[in-house]
Amino acid sequence: MNPYPLYQLMGVPLDLALEVHEILSGEGEIPGVSLEKTTFEHGVISTIRVLDERGESAMGKPRGTYVTLESEALRTVDRTAHASLIAILSDTIKNMLDLPDTASVLCCGIGNPNVISDALGPMTANRLTATRSLFEIAPEMREGLREVSVIAPGVSGVTGIETAEILESLIDRIKPDCLICVDALAAGSLSRLSATIQLADTGIFPGSGVGSRRKPIDRQTMGVPVLALGVPTVVHAGVIVHQAMEILTGHLEEVSSSSQAYRDLQPPNIKTIIDRVLEPFDGHLTVTPKDVDEQIGNLVHIISGAITTALHSGVNPEHLKWLP
Amino acid sequence: MNPYPLYQLMGVPLDLALEVHEILSGEGEIPGVSLEKTTFEHGVISTIRVLDERGESAMGKPRGTYVTLESEALRTVDRTAHASLIAILSDTIKNMLDLPDTASVLCCGIGNPNVISDALGPMTANRLTATRSLFEIAPEMREGLREVSVIAPGVSGVTGIETAEILESLIDRIKPDCLICVDALAAGSLSRLSATIQLADTGIFPGSGVGSRRKPIDRQTMGVPVLALGVPTVVHAGVIVHQAMEILTGHLEEVSSSSQAYRDLQPPNIKTIIDRVLEPFDGHLTVTPKDVDEQIGNLVHIISGAITTALHSGVNPEHLKWLP
Amino acid sequence: MNPYPLYQLMGVPLDLALEVHEILSGEGEIPGVSLEKTTFEHGVISTIRVLDERGESAMGKPRGTYVTLESEALRTVDRTAHASLIAILSDTIKNMLDLPDTASVLCCGIGNPNVISDALGPMTANRLTATRSLFEIAPEMREGLREVSVIAPGVSGVTGIETAEILESLIDRIKPDCLICVDALAAGSLSRLSATIQLADTGIFPGSGVGSRRKPIDRQTMGVPVLALGVPTVVHAGVIVHQAMEILTGHLEEVSSSSQAYRDLQPPNIKTIIDRVLEPFDGHLTVTPKDVDEQIGNLVHIISGAITTALHSGVNPEHLKWLP
Amino acid sequence: MNPYPLYQLMGVPLDLALEVHEILSGEGEIPGVSLEKTTFEHGVISTIRVLDERGESAMGKPRGTYVTLESEALRTVDRTAHASLIAILSDTIKNMLDLPDTASVLCCGIGNPNVISDALGPMTANRLTATRSLFEIAPEMREGLREVSVIAPGVSGVTGIETAEILESLIDRIKPDCLICVDALAAGSLSRLSATIQLADTGIFPGSGVGSRRKPIDRQTMGVPVLALGVPTVVHAGVIVHQAMEILTGHLEEVSSSSQAYRDLQPPNIKTIIDRVLEPFDGHLTVTPKDVDEQIGNLVHIISGAITTALHSGVNPEHLKWLP
Repeated sequence: MNPYPLYQLMGVPLDLALEVHEILSGEGEIPGVSLEKTTFEHGVISTIRVLDERGESAMGKPRGTYVTLESEALRTVDRTAHASLIAILSDTIKNMLDLPDTASVLCCGIGNPNVISDALGPMTANRLTATRSLFEIAPEMREGLREVSVIAPGVSGVTGIETAEILESLIDRIKPDCLICVDALAAGSLSRLSATIQLADTGIFPGSGVGSRRKPIDRQTMGVPVLALGVPTVVHAGVIVHQAMEILTGHLEEVSSSSQAYRDLQPPNIKTIIDRVLEPFDGHLTVTPKDVDEQIGNLVHIISGAITTALHSGVNPEHLKWLP
Repeated sequence: MNPYPLYQLMGVPLDLALEVHEILSGEGEIPGVSLEKTTFEHGVISTIRVLDERGESAMGKPRGTYVTLESEALRTVDRTAHASLIAILSDTIKNMLDLPDTASVLCCGIGNPNVISDALGPMTANRLTATRSLFEIAPEMREGLREVSVIAPGVSGVTGIETAEILESLIDRIKPDCLICVDALAAGSLSRLSATIQLADTGIFPGSGVGSRRKPIDRQTMGVPVLALGVPTVVHAGVIVHQAMEILTGHLEEVSSSSQAYRDLQPPNIKTIIDRVLEPFDGHLTVTPKDVDEQIGNLVHIISGAITTALHSGVNPEHLKWLP
Repeated sequence: MNPYPLYQLMGVPLDLALEVHEILSGEGEIPGVSLEKTTFEHGVISTIRVLDERGESAMGKPRGTYVTLESEALRTVDRTAHASLIAILSDTIKNMLDLPDTASVLCCGIGNPNVISDALGPMTANRLTATRSLFEIAPEMREGLREVSVIAPGVSGVTGIETAEILESLIDRIKPDCLICVDALAAGSLSRLSATIQLADTGIFPGSGVGSRRKPIDRQTMGVPVLALGVPTVVHAGVIVHQAMEILTGHLEEVSSSSQAYRDLQPPNIKTIIDRVLEPFDGHLTVTPKDVDEQIGNLVHIISGAITTALHSGVNPEHLKWLP
Repeated sequence: MNPYPLYQLMGVPLDLALEVHEILSGEGEIPGVSLEKTTFEHGVISTIRVLDERGESAMGKPRGTYVTLESEALRTVDRTAHASLIAILSDTIKNMLDLPDTASVLCCGIGNPNVISDALGPMTANRLTATRSLFEIAPEMREGLREVSVIAPGVSGVTGIETAEILESLIDRIKPDCLICVDALAAGSLSRLSATIQLADTGIFPGSGVGSRRKPIDRQTMGVPVLALGVPTVVHAGVIVHQAMEILTGHLEEVSSSSQAYRDLQPPNIKTIIDRVLEPFDGHLTVTPKDVDEQIGNLVHIISGAITTALHSGVNPEHLKWLP
């Protein structure tokens, strides 16, 4: 067990609750936190509940439920497996939202559409069907369809406006009953890239994510329940530097029995080494697989399919298959 | 003079005040409306002022100032001419806005980025530099730059939310001192396509535009002054059908001296004929030149350059030339 | 029956063989041309065969088979209907190509990806899976999959190279057994827009299409069989001007019994009137419905699905449903 | 001096000749290789000449000239500095090509337009003006303009055809006098990202580049001179792992005087450690700065401007400034 977890070392919160849990649970049970695992044909679903202040303080994450769906099938083009992932994800969304049929929803695709590893949100938003204006013109269409609005406002570097500000003002105006956000996340390990979907009823937290949005998007700021769906598409470069150091010092300890190389490394030194490696870009470096565009394509298909079936009771899942 | 102007016949308001003026002024002076023309190296600038209720009722347009810049150079790739068009357009924007240096601006690109003839707004927005978030982090950057936010929310068919609603709520939140909208317009004549820029301090009116937005975006609804910049990029198909009928009946009258073909056509009949031609798409048909993508490219360069120099006193026009 | 069909008047060949046939067959049987119609749940399939020189000269189209699938469901978002359209289209492609399992195919998306009404080809190409490079690395993947290459070279205004030249040289190099081209067409009537798919084993002819490519792409120039799939997405503006004149003169004849307005119009006069209306853009004007982007999305889904199942015997149609 | 340079350790050729030279020249003069440096206002130009077999074998790069332009201004938005970079780059291109006015050029943008860090080539191609088709229609336009064709065929994963194959067949057909390729490169150090442009008259070599194209694109395969322009936009993840190990072992040696940690590490062990870190993606991982999209925008502006002025004698550099 690594005594200096990266997310403490670097001041970068880990986006996936499951990764934080894995690190912490090495030291035994985490007070105020529960974990439940279920397996299914194509993977594992983990439900972490941060129950009280002790849990919040240990996990560094607000009270609430974090459901993580892990499946290698997310990285493949196996459409049969995708169908079953869509069904499971759709059910999870329905359970977490628990919305009456008449409740309206605002969906927000967060991220920069011009950088593919940050484009999961905008690309998913692009595949959702907004019904709200339609209902104003043709109220008879409501049968089996929910009132949905969709927005993908782009990053604040381009708009000059924080996504949280845009959402707050929009919610104030169109009064949806709940907000669903889709965003690209950063993982603490390469093996999770594009293979994990996290759903959190706690919303989106400052400082996380690929593009480090600064203001929280949660029930408190938005005034409505917020469900955040995210997939890790990048790893901060610091993570792999850190891993390299762990593996190297492990190796050195093995070959030279007396050495205690890494154990003796103090956290400030580790941080200094990582910073020196990543210096030219102030650490704003991300690691992505080369075929990230293909993986994002799959994920957009699955997540947009799941949101669509979760929201509209009248959408025949058979028809959903045909969604672009 | 055509006694049944198209915009009356078809219930489609003409977007260009200048076109309405041309039709009406055939019948003599228009009460409550003034027109001033200036020529410059590359074209003509017309300033129409709708002064009172009589003017509003005659023109079918709200009180305010409509400046139209006409230049064939807008359709060419003559970058020297473009430089002078940018300078003139920039001065016009500055005069119409008359903003103190400390005033902040929200810019909105209206339209559908996926259909090139409706993409002028979003593409221009993409070229503007949003400084608002930057100033929050680095207030020292304010020197010579104005606080600007930029949004291009997409069409309501995709978002489920009217552009006017998004802007109202956003303005309520970020409190800009003024709003600039860029939008693609519909012309009443092919010869105006991509060769005319209209600036109106009256904002954007329901029912106009390529995508027929429904709610007005003006000082009253937005609570701040609104400057609308538009370029006609399409002609409603009904316009050319109407022109065909005029020319044909003119021809028939010539060849058969006794005939009074068109003069005898009653407006209801004209409308019926137009509707019959355009029936399969309920009249939602637009006419565009095949090379519309090249023309939009030029216009985006000119309009984004003019807005940028008009807003930021510290932007050296020499540097502006280098804007992408 | 109009004695001066538009495609003769304006020197613009009609892209759809079915439209030419409809005009000509008004005058009785067309020598050297056969027509067969079948109906199916969602529409009609017409097979026109141009059998000999008489047929070629009458139709203005080369000898060969032109299959036209007409269905209003192409314009809807009814995914169940789309599934059956994909199956029928896939069978038609298989029958027309009649390829052994080992034959390789080059697919070409023709058109300008930046103008949505001309983007059917490039967007469809984007959805096809190219297997050729894959087989070079992993020959074991060949099972159930055909060797396919895919190209969308863009328009000659952007590349400086005719699509026909690029294809000729590429075919010379990679030696496919056949070429499939997908292109946007121009219709002679608004009612056909996005509601008709034409398959022709004669390839693509100079002067047709949205962007008026100049060199033929056919078996003779390419050296391999060429199957052209096209959908009309625009109507030349001249077509609706012409229709307006027909309807207007019909009306005039009705109201004034003695008049023979249109019958007396000589073709040269008709052409002059059309030219005068469309003058500012030399007739390079196209008419499109405003929601053309949604319609193209549907068509790309259907055509890419049909080509994929037609080419790869091992693709389970169930899985195909899941293609993006 | 590091005795096990990364490019030997990992079997990944370094794309920048200058980086290879820096590593090797630590050991003294390199036989068969010359280096010349010039400084200019905004940076340094290095000209490396690989003169003979000894040079080829030492550098792992074919005989020829490699000019590298290094400037921090490439990463800024200083348009005045960009103007002088365009002028210098344009002169370098002209010198390296040394073309008569009548010589024709094929420009190729290499890479995947969907992944921004690999999109430098396609995005630059998009900004070049192809004159070849134009000259066929309007030969009088030749004055001051060169015959240019432009292609950006996409990656072989999408087309099924190697870029080298497409270029070979196209050159065979349209017979240009020379080929210019623009491609994204991989650097051996973060500090070079987006701050270095390499021009090589040796073309593009297998295995290099972001997307690891497999066949060489050089004078021998293409039959015409090939000028390759490249900018490093990514670093292979292995590079930063390697750097982390160097820095860590340096640190360990300092703190524990007796240790010889890294010096004792054998290359096979180093390779094993790197592989273990990057295992989940077989090493196909790249590191990019988060704001890569803004940097690519600048580079496309500079490189397309330089190529345009280098090729067309009649393009007034003043006008060039106005290029989009």
